[in-house]
Amino acid sequence: MDYSKLNGLVPAVIQDSETSEVLMVGFMNEQALAETERTGYATFFSRSRGKLWMKGETSGNLLAVTSILVDCDDDTVLVKVKRLGDGNVCHTGQRTCFFRELKETGQR
Amino acid sequence: MDYSKLNGLVPAVIQDSETSEVLMVGFMNEQALAETERTGYATFFSRSRGKLWMKGETSGNLLAVTSILVDCDDDTVLVKVKRLGDGNVCHTGQRTCFFRELKETGQR
Repeated sequence: MDYSKLNGLVPAVIQDSETSEVLMVGFMNEQALAETERTGYATFFSRSRGKLWMKGETSGNLLAVTSILVDCDDDTVLVKVKRLGDGNVCHTGQRTCFFRELKETGQR
Repeated sequence: MDYSKLNGLVPAVIQDSETSEVLMVGFMNEQALAETERTGYATFFSRSRGKLWMKGETSGNLLAVTSILVDCDDDTVLVKVKRLGDGNVCHTGQRTCFFRELKETGQR
């Protein structure tokens, strides 16, 4: 993987392997990707906390990896997962972090 | 949108609105997102070239936007699109940039 474009990180798109919904986007460094492969659960590098975190390690809403794809220029991964626990991926209690249309938010 | 976490950029995940395939990930700055909304075609900020580019502007393989979703913390967009032209999004001629399993590549 090419970690050079984002200071040691690559974006990781998390997609439900059953419904194909895009659930969230996080960032992985080399160690997070290695832990994701080793444990079978999606593990990210938290930019705000400066450390690894396995998604759902406290809530139980782990993301069990079914496959990992890499893009053509090796700087992004697409992680297909099965949702465990109550299946809500977003900290707001929604199933996916992408639950608002941009237009609705009035943002730009 | 919160552009502060990546020096003025947010990741933009491009998903086929019909098949739900994740096709590519690019980056947008505020201007690229505004152009995407204004024109109706996915427009990115090229980190390597330092300028905006409308995906498919030369190949004709434009990405017609059907909806734009924003994630819970306003730092990523999910752009749902209809593929135009020959429908191949990747510069390698594949339909999606995510056409290889990480394992196959032997990468880490």
